[in-house]
Amino acid sequence: MLNIGFIGCGKRGKSLIRDVFVNIDKVRVVALCDVYEDKMDDVGEIVNAKHSYVPEKFSDWKALIDSDKVDTIVVTASWETHIGPAIYAMKKGKPVAIEVGGAYSVEECWDLVRTYEETKTPFMMLENCCYGKRELMVTNMVEKGFFGEIVHCEGAYAHDLRNEISFGKENRHYRLRNYLNRNCENYPTHELGPIAKLLKINRGNRMVSLTSTASKAAGLKEYIKENKSDDEFLMNATFSQGDIITTVIKCANGETITLTLDTTLPRYYSRNFTVRGTKGMYEERTDSVFEDKAHEDKHFTWKDEFGNAEKYEKEYQHPIWKEYLEAGIVGGHDGMDWLVDNAFVDAVINGTECPIDVYDAASWMVISVLSEQSILKGGAPVEIPDFTRGEWIRRPYKVL
Amino acid sequence: MLNIGFIGCGKRGKSLIRDVFVNIDKVRVVALCDVYEDKMDDVGEIVNAKHSYVPEKFSDWKALIDSDKVDTIVVTASWETHIGPAIYAMKKGKPVAIEVGGAYSVEECWDLVRTYEETKTPFMMLENCCYGKRELMVTNMVEKGFFGEIVHCEGAYAHDLRNEISFGKENRHYRLRNYLNRNCENYPTHELGPIAKLLKINRGNRMVSLTSTASKAAGLKEYIKENKSDDEFLMNATFSQGDIITTVIKCANGETITLTLDTTLPRYYSRNFTVRGTKGMYEERTDSVFEDKAHEDKHFTWKDEFGNAEKYEKEYQHPIWKEYLEAGIVGGHDGMDWLVDNAFVDAVINGTECPIDVYDAASWMVISVLSEQSILKGGAPVEIPDFTRGEWIRRPYKVL
Repeated sequence: MLNIGFIGCGKRGKSLIRDVFVNIDKVRVVALCDVYEDKMDDVGEIVNAKHSYVPEKFSDWKALIDSDKVDTIVVTASWETHIGPAIYAMKKGKPVAIEVGGAYSVEECWDLVRTYEETKTPFMMLENCCYGKRELMVTNMVEKGFFGEIVHCEGAYAHDLRNEISFGKENRHYRLRNYLNRNCENYPTHELGPIAKLLKINRGNRMVSLTSTASKAAGLKEYIKENKSDDEFLMNATFSQGDIITTVIKCANGETITLTLDTTLPRYYSRNFTVRGTKGMYEERTDSVFEDKAHEDKHFTWKDEFGNAEKYEKEYQHPIWKEYLEAGIVGGHDGMDWLVDNAFVDAVINGTECPIDVYDAASWMVISVLSEQSILKGGAPVEIPDFTRGEWIRRPYKVL
Repeated sequence: MLNIGFIGCGKRGKSLIRDVFVNIDKVRVVALCDVYEDKMDDVGEIVNAKHSYVPEKFSDWKALIDSDKVDTIVVTASWETHIGPAIYAMKKGKPVAIEVGGAYSVEECWDLVRTYEETKTPFMMLENCCYGKRELMVTNMVEKGFFGEIVHCEGAYAHDLRNEISFGKENRHYRLRNYLNRNCENYPTHELGPIAKLLKINRGNRMVSLTSTASKAAGLKEYIKENKSDDEFLMNATFSQGDIITTVIKCANGETITLTLDTTLPRYYSRNFTVRGTKGMYEERTDSVFEDKAHEDKHFTWKDEFGNAEKYEKEYQHPIWKEYLEAGIVGGHDGMDWLVDNAFVDAVINGTECPIDVYDAASWMVISVLSEQSILKGGAPVEIPDFTRGEWIRRPYKVL
């Protein structure tokens, strides 16, 4: 049984506790931390309704980590408060998982890695999209050679967040202060995680450099003018964050990865997960699989094949998902949250390696920082640190 | 009546003559030039079958331009032989149009511009995609403010050309020598042309810099191994050209443009024409229009709206296409060729400005050269010359 302390009781923490953690037999949510008392009460009620006890409340995350009642930490706080608690928890020997987000400095990524190497305390990033049904099916196809040699991948966080960001004067949404002050690929891991896994990043491959370019920032300004014109603070705000950030990453084995951050203009949701190889392609936007010879007469009539990826499930559904579908999907985000959170819990309980480790987290999170630098330098290429210090050449490959 | 000499009788020259030029009342194709005699004979027969005369054959394009029989030049030769004949023709005072392709040096683009400025001989690039039905409809919507402020555009030349490139030992396809020797965005104008038009490039805006990144070159090698293993030359060939080239362009007014060259991996055809604004988006891949408020409940169910662009034709079909559809579409590439070639013929006959001018051509074609430089410098940003020498600030806006 793990006694978990949750740092961060906002929208994300609440949904993970409600949809996942109160339903895992092997854990108890025993402590909560947030800067807002009402959010802790709200989440505490969810635990109480299910298990008839109220978790202890903490206003200071160090106190929560130090508490004897807590043996495991989950960090669902704002982006800025991920790496700090993770390092502190590892130093205290308490296994820790962090929610997704980008980093703010290269050095804190190195600190994360160093702390893990010194303490060997279990650490995991809860990148749920690594457990996406399509992402895992396509990764399975990659491993079976379906796409031939992989040459290029694309991904995006394409999600209209204008309303969420400009929540209002209360300024409780952490994204607002990021969009006001920074200009970068601020949320790379949903799309990069699954791509990094299938390209064997840190296990036979690595990301070596990137360039990043920002469009102007026009979306939020116009949205606020049209929807929040009674909010003086927002009406006068100037946003540093460009609407579209395009980042191109080059890998040691010659592959390229294109990432797009696309959160402040009207559009539909997409992670644009795309895998290109010498024998075929998968494209999330049209949910279709193009097979080299089988589809050669369809070059100009591809829309007839939109959605054909479903046909490949029979042969290529990932074992994790086969089992999961038989057992019945649970929880939020199409079931991905359940899978990723349980993977952490199981690794801690069984003493096995966490499937998304500190090298994954550091190399994915640092993209935000390097993107910021590249944009500031007019799109100049920036080197991506090798957090494995050369071990990527011999670390054995595994997906999760 | 224009007496046209055609330089280049390959696949492109032949189709333009067969589908367009022999059907234009106001012109006669009186002379042909090619390095291959059989190709001239082949095209000559098409003219003869339609008009009962055989055009004169030239093996030297300067001799064709010098010929008294010829008053107008159309260049449909290989990419390397576009700017040279254009400059020579302008110097001889003979109006000239060139087919699409990229440039090979910055200097030849300047020479093209200088020659036009000195001679004022009509010059046009025949970028047919500027006359695409969707491209023009969306441009019309942009001009009417439908998408709000334009922030970002995307385009691609996504066309599996592996068979065409590796045509065989005979080496008559000019693409082969380019793919063997160069590594760049070698064919930018199909996607960039319409984007540059709607972003008012050279007429109120300009492209200021780009970065370009190449993936490894794996597609052709594997294709040849599987399909042409009896061709010793190709089996031993090493291709410089990366499979996927991602180029990101920054504009003076803050917009970004992402271009993708994608010609040597299995896939379906797409120009990925995408326009993003503060009030909506258009995306060719799914042929859909996203309207800010009208579609806000469809963020996660967008596939229901795939193909909805058709609904916007009634209100936003471009006048050029309205008229064209009423008259009946003619010729190749869904009718675009007819429109662009007639635009040139009409401009020359009427003495009006060519709708795709020397500044358009120079600034679009130079992207190939700058992309090559950026790739060689590890993705470093490269400045894009202002071929208008500052006039872009005051040149009046017009699309075509």
